[in-house]
Amino acid sequence: MTTRWKITVEYDGAGFCGWQRQAEDVTVQAIIETAIHAFSGEAARLHVAGRTDAGVHALAQVAHFDLEKGVKAVEVLGGINYHARPHRVVVVKAEEAPMDFHARFSALSRRYRYQIINRSAPLALMEGKAWHVVRPLSLEPMQKAATLLIGTHDFSTFRAQRCQATSPVRTLDELTITQINETFFFDVKARSFLYHQVRNMVGTLAKVGTGQWSVDEFAAAFAAAERVKGGPTAPSDGLYFVSVEY
Amino acid sequence: MTTRWKITVEYDGAGFCGWQRQAEDVTVQAIIETAIHAFSGEAARLHVAGRTDAGVHALAQVAHFDLEKGVKAVEVLGGINYHARPHRVVVVKAEEAPMDFHARFSALSRRYRYQIINRSAPLALMEGKAWHVVRPLSLEPMQKAATLLIGTHDFSTFRAQRCQATSPVRTLDELTITQINETFFFDVKARSFLYHQVRNMVGTLAKVGTGQWSVDEFAAAFAAAERVKGGPTAPSDGLYFVSVEY
Repeated sequence: MTTRWKITVEYDGAGFCGWQRQAEDVTVQAIIETAIHAFSGEAARLHVAGRTDAGVHALAQVAHFDLEKGVKAVEVLGGINYHARPHRVVVVKAEEAPMDFHARFSALSRRYRYQIINRSAPLALMEGKAWHVVRPLSLEPMQKAATLLIGTHDFSTFRAQRCQATSPVRTLDELTITQINETFFFDVKARSFLYHQVRNMVGTLAKVGTGQWSVDEFAAAFAAAERVKGGPTAPSDGLYFVSVEY
Repeated sequence: MTTRWKITVEYDGAGFCGWQRQAEDVTVQAIIETAIHAFSGEAARLHVAGRTDAGVHALAQVAHFDLEKGVKAVEVLGGINYHARPHRVVVVKAEEAPMDFHARFSALSRRYRYQIINRSAPLALMEGKAWHVVRPLSLEPMQKAATLLIGTHDFSTFRAQRCQATSPVRTLDELTITQINETFFFDVKARSFLYHQVRNMVGTLAKVGTGQWSVDEFAAAFAAAERVKGGPTAPSDGLYFVSVEY
């Protein structure tokens, strides 16, 4: 009898060429699928809530797969974690799910966090875990610009060319920017995001934060609904896939 | 004319055999002294507020050294950071100090933070940055036991054999334990600490947290003033040297 397994996964993006399996490359999907095969003997295929790019981290990514073999949740968790070593990917939770559960299509919302460290000195402890921005950032103008993005809009200005979505319209439920000393956190929530949407929004908001753009210029770029009007794509290593709600 | 330089340093302990220069080993002191020589041509000697062990991190360690050559603060910062690469040590601030300033002896207090991640799954993102404790920890009994340590006491129970201090008596100004989801933070402040004192206090408090010891048993171990009565030494990679006050 087939069992559908839902796994919650944490990984350090630095060690992987992103989530999705590609020939030859070390990807999170390939490591976990190989680990599943190693402990169960089955060639399961993983489906994931949010395919992440190279360098992007995850605190609680969610994926599912099916197994014919009857095993316990603790064996799924332990089996994958044992065989995934020494790669920095860990199953933090494994649970049985109904057969109609789908990690990607059942998701009601996804949360990402983006982290900037704003200082002149290079990063030692947080290298590869945050975007290092040297020009001083102001919180308040970024927060003002961010409120313009909340709600249902055409997000073409923040949509990467390679995006395969049929529509550029998305509903952004949340975009909160908080500052703790030299660190800025951008917390976003939406049902789904366009390709590179979070990194492009952060890269463009940072232009407002440094004073290169006014909030009005930001609003005009957003309203133009053209990628070329937006700011740069923030680097992948400041981005964290936080969680999924079902 | 000699100038005394005070530098504030961040480092990732994983890449170093501790602070103190040792023949052959990669230490923070050796990397910085070599970098100072590379940009100034002078063989300066570094004095540090808190010598840290292998694996211990620093957010704002403080050290000082003297230079004959007249240079600007920005050259000291940039010069060391340029030559210290690719080691994960960074000068975040460089400033002139009076000639009677001493990074170690002028310090009025030092702050350390210890970080535990409490869960069954191994660590992916925080590997090498926290102590992974599998047995469930309770915050409240640890907090009760921690209050016993505040103030002036004989800390022999938490003093490593190799400690070179003349007295086991220290004054602990602060020991705050906070929990955020699966992470426990131990924040301590004192004028000075015995060798391994923080790691031994945390290792022993964790025995209370897991329920292996009652608060009374902890109190008895502390009162015994013998290292053999204490709990284990918590691993170095959960420890952060946070800051110094002068």
